[in-house]
Amino acid sequence: MKRILICFSYNGSAYSGYQTQKNAKSVQQTIEDALSKKLSQTIKLTATGRTDAGVHALCQYAHFDADIKFDAEKIVKIAKVVLPQDIVVYSAKQVPNDFNARFDVKKKTYMYVFSKNKKLLPFEHNLATFLDIEVDVQKMQNASQMLLGQHDFRAFCSSGTTVVDFVRTIYDIKIENTQDYLKFFVSGNGFLYNMVRIIVGTLIDIGSGKLDPSCLEKMLSTGKRELGGKTAKPNGLYLYDVEY
Amino acid sequence: MKRILICFSYNGSAYSGYQTQKNAKSVQQTIEDALSKKLSQTIKLTATGRTDAGVHALCQYAHFDADIKFDAEKIVKIAKVVLPQDIVVYSAKQVPNDFNARFDVKKKTYMYVFSKNKKLLPFEHNLATFLDIEVDVQKMQNASQMLLGQHDFRAFCSSGTTVVDFVRTIYDIKIENTQDYLKFFVSGNGFLYNMVRIIVGTLIDIGSGKLDPSCLEKMLSTGKRELGGKTAKPNGLYLYDVEY
Repeated sequence: MKRILICFSYNGSAYSGYQTQKNAKSVQQTIEDALSKKLSQTIKLTATGRTDAGVHALCQYAHFDADIKFDAEKIVKIAKVVLPQDIVVYSAKQVPNDFNARFDVKKKTYMYVFSKNKKLLPFEHNLATFLDIEVDVQKMQNASQMLLGQHDFRAFCSSGTTVVDFVRTIYDIKIENTQDYLKFFVSGNGFLYNMVRIIVGTLIDIGSGKLDPSCLEKMLSTGKRELGGKTAKPNGLYLYDVEY
Repeated sequence: MKRILICFSYNGSAYSGYQTQKNAKSVQQTIEDALSKKLSQTIKLTATGRTDAGVHALCQYAHFDADIKFDAEKIVKIAKVVLPQDIVVYSAKQVPNDFNARFDVKKKTYMYVFSKNKKLLPFEHNLATFLDIEVDVQKMQNASQMLLGQHDFRAFCSSGTTVVDFVRTIYDIKIENTQDYLKFFVSGNGFLYNMVRIIVGTLIDIGSGKLDPSCLEKMLSTGKRELGGKTAKPNGLYLYDVEY
């Protein structure tokens, strides 16, 4: 039995999310079914984390145990044959049997992409959120620094979560502004339900002048979700990088 | 009656091409049907040029005549409501009644996009061609200069064309090489059937060392298509810019 760690990207547009759920097509189930059939054994994935419906990944990791004779690296070629075009396994390697793709994560980075160019809309309606208002990027960048470090982020969490510990650490928030795109990169040790989308939505409202930057401090101190901006749409969000 | 010039982009993935043809969904027919219905009159488009099945446009122009009371610019908003997400009209203006979107073109630029990053495959399988070989960009750029100017390009034309005059002028060929993409920009006064895709396919074969750069000169002097490389796939091609 070998423990294998795969790294893969996927376009979440056609899926109900990463995690398997009843009566819906998930990324996890799609990979498990394809590999199980091809390897003639039951394959169960344990991933870095789940992503919601419509959210994408450029770098999602998962480990699984398999009784295979060939090198783990060969899984890349096998996956290419058995998986649909919207999921691509681009690396695979054997890891120690006590490695855990979910619990051994040190740092996760999400990217959120706004598209500013109308011309690009036909190519990106599932892959970016269209931004048609002016925002002050420097103001957003300055405000975002308030969120760095360890905080109770319950004000940045949608209801319906079963989590009891709302303390997380954000390492970095970077904003990249080009002619066609506005991108947010948020790194941390872990994220609550919709946390990145609420951070991004609130920063956009600060950038547009709809909210005062002081709302971030108030959200952290009071824990009140309603002091923030709206939750940004799922289609612009990507699990971007993971460090173990 | 006003003559209106629209500029639009489209994702060609779901279409049989720009031009209307029997028993197939075209970009032209989709726009004509939607605008005819909304404006309660028959709208017929005359475009810059046709694009093949799977080919995209970031800047396609078309003119049409319509009996409307409102400003031509309002067509942008109307189109947004009646067109599918993969076609976006981003500008509209009234032009003189003798303006012709097809015959008045001075310069057209096509872009061809190769994607080099496996991670991006789930997002781009219809929008770029994946390149998994090493190519010498400088060698391609140098070789491409042979094609500039006025030539008989019959060796750069797929069979099945009804054209009798194969003389065209290429103004410029630029290659942009970044970490994730290799892009070709080809400008000219007009292009033969599959001409850009044959130029790009041949330059790639030169860049990989499969063909000698001298093949371009031989193609021009002999008119023999078989001396060139393969025709690059349609999905990486974009009508990129048009000048009147």
